Amino acid sequence: MIKIRIDKLREKMKEQNIYAYIIPSSDYHQSEYVGEYFKSREFMSGFTGSAGTVVVTLDEAGLWTDGRYFIQAEDELKGSNIKLFKMGEESVPTVEAYLIDKLPKDSKLGFDGKVICAKEGKDLEKKLEFKNIAIEYSEDLVNHIWEERTELPNKKAFLLGTEYTGASFSEKLQRVREAMKEKKATAHIITSLDDIAWLFNIRGGDVKSNPVVLSYAIIGLEGVYLFVDESKLNDEIKSELNKENVQIKQYDEIYDFVKTLNDEEVVLLDPAKVNYAVYNNIHKNIRKIESTNPTIMFKAIKNEVELKNIRNSHIKDGVAVTKFMYWLKTNVGKMEITELSATQKLEDLRREQDKFIEPSFGTIAAYREHAAMMHYSATKESDYTLEPRDLFLVDSGGQYYDGTTDITRTIALGSTSEEVQTHFTNVVRGMIRLSKAKFLHGCRGYNLDILARGPLWDLGIDYKCGTGHGIGFVLNVHEAPNGFRWRVVADRDDSCILEEGMVTTNEPGVYVQGSHGIRIENELVVRKLEKNEYGQFMDFEVVTFAPIDIDALDERLFLQDEKDYLNNYHKEVYNKISPFLNDEEREWLKEYTREI
Amino acid sequence: MIKIRIDKLREKMKEQNIYAYIIPSSDYHQSEYVGEYFKSREFMSGFTGSAGTVVVTLDEAGLWTDGRYFIQAEDELKGSNIKLFKMGEESVPTVEAYLIDKLPKDSKLGFDGKVICAKEGKDLEKKLEFKNIAIEYSEDLVNHIWEERTELPNKKAFLLGTEYTGASFSEKLQRVREAMKEKKATAHIITSLDDIAWLFNIRGGDVKSNPVVLSYAIIGLEGVYLFVDESKLNDEIKSELNKENVQIKQYDEIYDFVKTLNDEEVVLLDPAKVNYAVYNNIHKNIRKIESTNPTIMFKAIKNEVELKNIRNSHIKDGVAVTKFMYWLKTNVGKMEITELSATQKLEDLRREQDKFIEPSFGTIAAYREHAAMMHYSATKESDYTLEPRDLFLVDSGGQYYDGTTDITRTIALGSTSEEVQTHFTNVVRGMIRLSKAKFLHGCRGYNLDILARGPLWDLGIDYKCGTGHGIGFVLNVHEAPNGFRWRVVADRDDSCILEEGMVTTNEPGVYVQGSHGIRIENELVVRKLEKNEYGQFMDFEVVTFAPIDIDALDERLFLQDEKDYLNNYHKEVYNKISPFLNDEEREWLKEYTREI
Repeated sequence: MIKIRIDKLREKMKEQNIYAYIIPSSDYHQSEYVGEYFKSREFMSGFTGSAGTVVVTLDEAGLWTDGRYFIQAEDELKGSNIKLFKMGEESVPTVEAYLIDKLPKDSKLGFDGKVICAKEGKDLEKKLEFKNIAIEYSEDLVNHIWEERTELPNKKAFLLGTEYTGASFSEKLQRVREAMKEKKATAHIITSLDDIAWLFNIRGGDVKSNPVVLSYAIIGLEGVYLFVDESKLNDEIKSELNKENVQIKQYDEIYDFVKTLNDEEVVLLDPAKVNYAVYNNIHKNIRKIESTNPTIMFKAIKNEVELKNIRNSHIKDGVAVTKFMYWLKTNVGKMEITELSATQKLEDLRREQDKFIEPSFGTIAAYREHAAMMHYSATKESDYTLEPRDLFLVDSGGQYYDGTTDITRTIALGSTSEEVQTHFTNVVRGMIRLSKAKFLHGCRGYNLDILARGPLWDLGIDYKCGTGHGIGFVLNVHEAPNGFRWRVVADRDDSCILEEGMVTTNEPGVYVQGSHGIRIENELVVRKLEKNEYGQFMDFEVVTFAPIDIDALDERLFLQDEKDYLNNYHKEVYNKISPFLNDEEREWLKEYTREI
Repeated sequence: MIKIRIDKLREKMKEQNIYAYIIPSSDYHQSEYVGEYFKSREFMSGFTGSAGTVVVTLDEAGLWTDGRYFIQAEDELKGSNIKLFKMGEESVPTVEAYLIDKLPKDSKLGFDGKVICAKEGKDLEKKLEFKNIAIEYSEDLVNHIWEERTELPNKKAFLLGTEYTGASFSEKLQRVREAMKEKKATAHIITSLDDIAWLFNIRGGDVKSNPVVLSYAIIGLEGVYLFVDESKLNDEIKSELNKENVQIKQYDEIYDFVKTLNDEEVVLLDPAKVNYAVYNNIHKNIRKIESTNPTIMFKAIKNEVELKNIRNSHIKDGVAVTKFMYWLKTNVGKMEITELSATQKLEDLRREQDKFIEPSFGTIAAYREHAAMMHYSATKESDYTLEPRDLFLVDSGGQYYDGTTDITRTIALGSTSEEVQTHFTNVVRGMIRLSKAKFLHGCRGYNLDILARGPLWDLGIDYKCGTGHGIGFVLNVHEAPNGFRWRVVADRDDSCILEEGMVTTNEPGVYVQGSHGIRIENELVVRKLEKNEYGQFMDFEVVTFAPIDIDALDERLFLQDEKDYLNNYHKEVYNKISPFLNDEEREWLKEYTREI
């Protein structure tokens, strides 16, 4: 089947004299997660992983993906004639290097300009210039082949009121315009869905777990254009947009609209966010200011109302998780519980909470060695039945009208080995050391990462990912530009200065392939402390409250300050969570938040 | 006097129609420390600190310096009419911003092109372009005013044999040429004195404390040119240079020589090292590869022979410092000891050690509130007599034929307050936490800095400088590109990946203006630990051995692992140092390295 699809694509390519065609894993907005409509790469290759790029030439087809997916990709590509390019391995060319090598002089490269960002497209242009390669980006060739392609999602949007957001659309618009003026821009194109959702105070259901609305926006110093399927907008939203005379246009009308921009406009846009088609449709004579969207910083720094809501949503979330832990620890071995049924139970408990919308990402419920896979997702085939022994890792979160949560607890279902206890305790120690950091304003994630990672490095162990990511407010569970990561990774854009009000996860872990995985995750809000002659001091407020399973700890490994921290934290957990529990649960929580 | 000099300079400026003139603290080689000949900035301002820039305009004069020198500069500038610009403080413009603001359109900026690096000069050019500012760089105007200026230094050079350096000039030259070929360069201009000293295995006495020889070098793929006063070179050096047919040219001949470079040459140079005059004398048609000198990395990564020598020089240095501490603690209050006489005593004790050359920098011997000035230098006027109370900070080091050392101990001369003990203990805790770090290869100083700084940040205290700097081998006591600093400071170039064999100081501190200063400094060598599936782990070997004054500690503030570290360290100090002490000293050391 895949072979037939590739052949059909080649026919289309030949018609247009295209030598190579790129199919990335992206939507029109450079979103991290994409809806069914945008899974062209999966359709063309059969590979279902979240990250990967297919390149089809007239005589070869390749899939590029990273280390997380080598085994899965090898499996899924079987019989497809698509060659697997293992990214990052020695002597494996990048997509770019491959194209530079493969494309004959004076030939044509194709891709859908809507799914490749301007930065990447322009880079390719420049690097292929010496071979005089033409780029054809105006058509999505896969569309011709994909007969049963779903429609674009059309979920209804809703307005998130100022009781949640703390700032109206009008107020936010004014801040954006001030930032535009500072940069001397007269128009600002925003295509990142979470930036648009934040600015207009709208939320929707167009991407699973990410409550965004498919849309583009152009902000002028006077007018505002929102490109969106109008049928998604209710009266409440329209009335809010009317206050600023927002003109609603068809979702895909932006491509023609930007062609009509006046020569005197100065357009602010981020080439890493705006797609190649939007970018190239802007007339070359128009001055572009290529810079980060001001909304990135505005959105990352949560205001007082958002923070109040975040704290509240986390209490509810903590209640659900605590009830889940009680249920699990009490019933494991007595009734049939599997990774999937536990996932369902946890979702049910969250649904009981006020203002719950949906999970904020696909739950990772991983027993034993499954937990060593950082991004494990249980399927009917892989589903393990839980037994009263070993560790069970549950990484989950909720979208509530008053906040987005992300929490991981690793739970001992019975006795654990000394090695596991050592690993578990040092994960907790790292989590604690970062939580209790006091630091000067100006610090970035890379200054603090070692606090979490150090206790594991001391054991000669590392986790191959950042320690934490920024998190949206009723928005994406992964949100730039804050994070904790010791290496600066330019593309990730997660090493900004930590500002008051930013929310970041703190989730060190240990992953031993074939054996076990441990991760403990709380969320931290940056807050200001004293300002003195040395500068502005900062620390973190923890907003996640659920017990850390003391059954898996080796107390002897704690330093005194860490032990004090844990005891205080557990006291707080009890105070905040116990009022919402029944008597048995409360008794259990008392026991599990006792001093060690 | 300063006022008269500034006025004279303004006359010269007017003659050449120059509106503003820059006088940095630099020699022709962008050296950190400069000989008397090059102290134009000090001559023109009276400010004696090691870092600072004077800008004189027709109606104003300013000195820019950093946090280390605010107090000193305020003092030394009194009555000079020179305004102090405190670098890094809010609303204080940089030199550049000041010039951009101050210079009238179409006016002229002047400086001696030999004392400003190419990068800085070119940056200024570009940023002032919009005001159409001309740059006059061919003359050193201060020379006209400074009648009693000393001659250029003419100290004899000596060859450092391979028993010290571990690699011959020929071997090093080959490495440099290989690096040039990789970058497709045919010529490489080296003007940084320590890079030249390292490459040619020569040392000299042209800059106090930095055993370098004033010189420039041009390395071709075949030939080598060394621009140096030939009378400084002895037969041993000449014979070594002859092996590679090095052509010796006059020191200042380079300025004409680079004008004669062939159009086909591809010149590798570092615009941050090469001065503006050398750079601008190269014909514009010649292709330049602007990149770091390969010698920077080669020099920073000490080889096994160098490390063996470094360890040995540190034992000798530790013996001198330990004897000094014994002498001081035993005699204070019983005999007249002052900051200056203590400095002399310590230098005498170093001179007793084998292979000692000279101090590696001006000793900082600072009693009481003097120690709050990070770079205090005692003078006859400021000299304090030590009393049997309070803290005495001594930061000093030696140049030996087998290594360069830098060590700080803060010594309690009698009882100390609880506040002082808290500060002292947390400085020691920070020093220890960084010393015992285990980390993955790839880490930079900014990943680790918080380990040293954290215990002070916890108290709401900071030190306004890096935690540590790289250090040369029988070379400059400050050496790039390694260091510990939480903020990346582009100009300092001290945040490279920490590689095996790099030597860095670890010197957190507390500085309370008008009260006290505390700093404890050991040197750390990066070494490799296990390599496993997570990567290459690294840690530090401590090479500095002298007791840390336990009289000033509050043991209760230590975490258990820190206390264990200190006790082990003191055990090692005793084992390594005691064999070289007399009976009284040994008894004393036993007592001062006891377990706490």
